[in-house]
Amino acid sequence: MSIRIGILGYGNLGRGVECAIRQNPDMELAAVFTRRNPADVEILTKTAKVLKVDEALEWKDKLDVMILCGGSATDLPVQTPEYAKYFNVVDSFDTHARIPEHFAQVDAAAKEGGKVAVISVGWDPGMFSLNRMYANAILPEGKDYTFWGRGVSQGHSDAVRRIEGVKDAKQYTIPVESALAAVRAGENPDLTTRQKHTRDCFVVLEEGADAAKVEQEIKTMPNYFADYDTTVHFISEEELKREHSGIPHGGFVLRSGRTGWEREHSHLIEYSLKLDSNPEFTASVIVAYARAAFRLAQEGQTGCKTVFDIAPAYLSAKSGEELRASML
Amino acid sequence: MSIRIGILGYGNLGRGVECAIRQNPDMELAAVFTRRNPADVEILTKTAKVLKVDEALEWKDKLDVMILCGGSATDLPVQTPEYAKYFNVVDSFDTHARIPEHFAQVDAAAKEGGKVAVISVGWDPGMFSLNRMYANAILPEGKDYTFWGRGVSQGHSDAVRRIEGVKDAKQYTIPVESALAAVRAGENPDLTTRQKHTRDCFVVLEEGADAAKVEQEIKTMPNYFADYDTTVHFISEEELKREHSGIPHGGFVLRSGRTGWEREHSHLIEYSLKLDSNPEFTASVIVAYARAAFRLAQEGQTGCKTVFDIAPAYLSAKSGEELRASML
Repeated sequence: MSIRIGILGYGNLGRGVECAIRQNPDMELAAVFTRRNPADVEILTKTAKVLKVDEALEWKDKLDVMILCGGSATDLPVQTPEYAKYFNVVDSFDTHARIPEHFAQVDAAAKEGGKVAVISVGWDPGMFSLNRMYANAILPEGKDYTFWGRGVSQGHSDAVRRIEGVKDAKQYTIPVESALAAVRAGENPDLTTRQKHTRDCFVVLEEGADAAKVEQEIKTMPNYFADYDTTVHFISEEELKREHSGIPHGGFVLRSGRTGWEREHSHLIEYSLKLDSNPEFTASVIVAYARAAFRLAQEGQTGCKTVFDIAPAYLSAKSGEELRASML
Repeated sequence: MSIRIGILGYGNLGRGVECAIRQNPDMELAAVFTRRNPADVEILTKTAKVLKVDEALEWKDKLDVMILCGGSATDLPVQTPEYAKYFNVVDSFDTHARIPEHFAQVDAAAKEGGKVAVISVGWDPGMFSLNRMYANAILPEGKDYTFWGRGVSQGHSDAVRRIEGVKDAKQYTIPVESALAAVRAGENPDLTTRQKHTRDCFVVLEEGADAAKVEQEIKTMPNYFADYDTTVHFISEEELKREHSGIPHGGFVLRSGRTGWEREHSHLIEYSLKLDSNPEFTASVIVAYARAAFRLAQEGQTGCKTVFDIAPAYLSAKSGEELRASML
């Protein structure tokens, strides 16, 4: 009687979800749905099917939760409202500014279908959001800080790769240690974009490309690099493969606040993540929320939820009794 | 239409709750109930009443939540089940081993009275428990670590003060930096009690007391000090007052875990607190959960809850829309 999961989209995130399901004995991967030719997609779980995405609706009574592993730019804004009519779904929609709009569309669809949809699950949005919210509720007078990294930013790596003369590239976002230290020391600094993060690019040039020109183009690129102190390292293709093929990430959420009748006491709440694999950790959070979606649906709930709306116990395979005895 | 709060017990924690209520504009302190003579108890909130604890039941329709600020040893095991029949209540019961029993008694009482009771609220149990639980749900294969300090342990300070020849004392619990560093480095160490924390005692002797004898007695005290590396500093009464009158505390909850088909990736989740005032921070958490208790009661829920059972959004004065737009 395990929770039957479907995965829609089999990239890094979909594969991470597959791995995470294997670590949760109360769940099983039933099927992976792909836009590619299923015969060309090899998955790790021998007991699960690989099917064309068009066949998904035929599985609406055979899955407890469908996990949507597409991208936030074009896939999820269409897929989540579409599939929330037929399945309990979880997505990792991460375009922060468009979350209210996405929520409204998914909520309407999920209510229409009598399903539960959990959106924007992962670590930011996700665990970082939760920690921002808890810390704000506890310390109403205070200041928030979020630092990202050290980690690979896919968007920035792509931006560098689009520059003429660049064969391949990886970009790391790095929090500025002195800024973090000032926050931890309770100094409540006002930090500019440049003061919070630096950017490190590892670039493989095409043969004959002009290194100085590429470096200049990276460092002055608006939105992506112009507001940051950026370092560019030119390396060989072999070195890039050997040293920079991982997808690590992480970061820090801090809130410093004051209490006392005269605000005489200060406090610091800090949450941090150090992740070897960004997609696998995101997937692990998603799978815990898939369990929650299943349970909420079993209780008869419907509509769109975020991490703010779901009691923590729903994420755990343990019972309330077990949690109280072992973790409280 | 603010949430009307009562405080039962006006020690450090009760006073912390009073201060926290002032920082939450949707709440007001209506009354403080004390076992002392109300005329002898001066509170900070000019608009609130100070009353004898026997008068509490007369306030059952005039308060939305009663916050129970007694101790876990003898007060709360009696008070929480008693008052949960008449009020929505929040307590900070922190005897971890007896939580299941306390939960059962409070649950029965709250259900009988049609009220909501939230128990074991604070930072440990409380925010540390939440972080243990979330981290375990996300990373099912991993290892947990909790370190406390640097901070004042009331129980250990009291134990030192009971030794013959000791006039006054303060005890600090200190996490061992190298142990924390090993956990952060992903080494998954097995740590003994001695390897996790050291203890620092600041002691004022009675005139003519034998320092060597006192030091020996502290360091060999079973349960409290014998299993730790303890340092004893003899200081003057003036220095104790000047340097050690605060009640700071804090600590670290970490979980290191592995993901990937072959568990090839490791991850570290860390939550930490650095608190100038242990009772004021505990009170701030309690007040956020008092808001949750009020809202759950308004929805018609009854019975005992812990931090595991309450969706995060209930703690915040902000609406779901505001939270999604500003913190997700």
